[in-house]
Amino acid sequence: MTHQYDSIRPIVWQDNHLELLDQRILPGEYQFIRYADVHAVADAIRDMVVRGAPAIGITAAYGIVLAARQRYAENAGNWLSAMQEDFDTLAASRPTAVNLFWAIERMKQCCAGIKGDPEPRLLQEAHAILEEDIAANHRMGELGASLIEPGCGVLTHCNAGALATGGYGTALGVIRSACAQGKITQVHADETRPWMQGARLTAWELLQDGIPVELNTDGAAAWLMKQGKVQWVIVGSDRIVANGDVANKIGTYNLAVLAKYHGVKFMVAAPTSTIDMSVASGEDIPIESRDTSEILALGGQRLAAKGAGAWNPVFDVTPADLVTAIITEKGVIEKPDQARIKQLMSD
Amino acid sequence: MTHQYDSIRPIVWQDNHLELLDQRILPGEYQFIRYADVHAVADAIRDMVVRGAPAIGITAAYGIVLAARQRYAENAGNWLSAMQEDFDTLAASRPTAVNLFWAIERMKQCCAGIKGDPEPRLLQEAHAILEEDIAANHRMGELGASLIEPGCGVLTHCNAGALATGGYGTALGVIRSACAQGKITQVHADETRPWMQGARLTAWELLQDGIPVELNTDGAAAWLMKQGKVQWVIVGSDRIVANGDVANKIGTYNLAVLAKYHGVKFMVAAPTSTIDMSVASGEDIPIESRDTSEILALGGQRLAAKGAGAWNPVFDVTPADLVTAIITEKGVIEKPDQARIKQLMSD
Repeated sequence: MTHQYDSIRPIVWQDNHLELLDQRILPGEYQFIRYADVHAVADAIRDMVVRGAPAIGITAAYGIVLAARQRYAENAGNWLSAMQEDFDTLAASRPTAVNLFWAIERMKQCCAGIKGDPEPRLLQEAHAILEEDIAANHRMGELGASLIEPGCGVLTHCNAGALATGGYGTALGVIRSACAQGKITQVHADETRPWMQGARLTAWELLQDGIPVELNTDGAAAWLMKQGKVQWVIVGSDRIVANGDVANKIGTYNLAVLAKYHGVKFMVAAPTSTIDMSVASGEDIPIESRDTSEILALGGQRLAAKGAGAWNPVFDVTPADLVTAIITEKGVIEKPDQARIKQLMSD
Repeated sequence: MTHQYDSIRPIVWQDNHLELLDQRILPGEYQFIRYADVHAVADAIRDMVVRGAPAIGITAAYGIVLAARQRYAENAGNWLSAMQEDFDTLAASRPTAVNLFWAIERMKQCCAGIKGDPEPRLLQEAHAILEEDIAANHRMGELGASLIEPGCGVLTHCNAGALATGGYGTALGVIRSACAQGKITQVHADETRPWMQGARLTAWELLQDGIPVELNTDGAAAWLMKQGKVQWVIVGSDRIVANGDVANKIGTYNLAVLAKYHGVKFMVAAPTSTIDMSVASGEDIPIESRDTSEILALGGQRLAAKGAGAWNPVFDVTPADLVTAIITEKGVIEKPDQARIKQLMSD
């Protein structure tokens, strides 16, 4: 496979600090923010400086490096027990993406065996999480692209790209790989209200790599499918649970129902760090609700009539039976169900 | 029935001029624009000062009054043949809503029999079109509300309210009537990208009448239905054709597919002036596409990445088999099809 479409890294460790590309102001401004403190990192996750399940996990891992540095400097004999508060702070930043908890757990386990200054070992682990994520995305790109027939139009939702991961992307990794193989006639992207990740982020990052993209309003997706313009919907995930149900950005379930109706295939690309075997079904996934101002206003400008209420769940759950295939770095699960998920995770 | 919820008139004839409530700047500003010239009226329709199929028809009727006044003043002996150009100007303003062509045709026929100054007779006809529309909406309100069981949540799309008609509204007329009867637990409204008619107009006009409304992003509609919060989707229409297919605001077809999947009923409320028996099926309805800037920017502020394309069809077509009932002022058509539509129109 070719790696030609791989130019973006939203999470960078530089000069002993964490730097995050500020995704709230893209595409108008391209600016990194430097972090030295774990509380600021938790705020960055909450405020969506960084977003996307794998990217949140990687960011939390680096946040733990910063926390350990500070705790060790304060009290070298007691740094690890002092850090429990920092783990909790990071864990409380956003509830739905399981990669956050996965990364915190992995870093915790790494902490347990450390003697002396924890920073070098933890930094090595955070770097490993980042590098493994990028490698997983390239592998998923290959696996996902192999399912796509030449001449396909694809539709994606939100941003499951380089910006949502260490680099290359999950859903957009598959799209990058399939584009590199010349299989895709047109990439369509839902603009993805309310945060407009499709219009702002997905369009921006694909255009950085020279991949043309056509935006549509989220409500136009059904009509787009009706025109025969879409053969695959390809999305990422914030949490896949034991029975194969998939939590992802609000509007994903919408697309899955539409895809089923129109005979369009539905692909979810996510690393195994997104799979949460501790939750039996989608009904038990915690779904974050955010402030109604995200719907009632845009860019600080009030849109909606004064007095209107709003309902702002940030994620929804797509039942496994609407999913054609889940792509992970460990392999493809077609027609996902409990048995097939369990099989893959125990391989 | 009660008429308590009936406070808004977007189209007013005052001091011998047409006045249109500028719907582009609602809800931030409430301002009427005065028109004396048919070309300015056609521009107002094209630029969406006024929108909504019945409202466009009524506006065109008054535009013809203004045109006749001008043509008669210019050349009293030749006003009618001179007006052909004005009919064409109005007809070219927007392509999808058939009420526009219906109103032009009705005013043309009225012109044919006039001796002397055409203005009084044409003004009488335009007033009749307006008053008949309001009366039809109240009648549809009654008929539609009678189908709704007490304790229902309803979801509407775009604005098919007083603002889209002479007054009271089609879909929102049904919702007003059902609310007056205490049948509705919650009105939900799609915000309706790209013009945000749900957030800006539907929320505003329902709140004017003291009806609470909760907005959701268009992509959240499926998840809203999954929560069991919606028993009826209620929308208006820009053109219903002979087989019962329904053109309406982009995103309507999306909702119809979702409603079918979730066992939610789907109601279309539209006066018979919206029914176009000359078109056999939805495939032959002209669907307007508008400028991509409506998607790429909002309020003059660029949202999308530079270089991104966009697909901006303004309407879509819902096939008759996804429609539970069409409500007209002449009666209700359940499970609409060619025979039932024909029956109603020949009654």
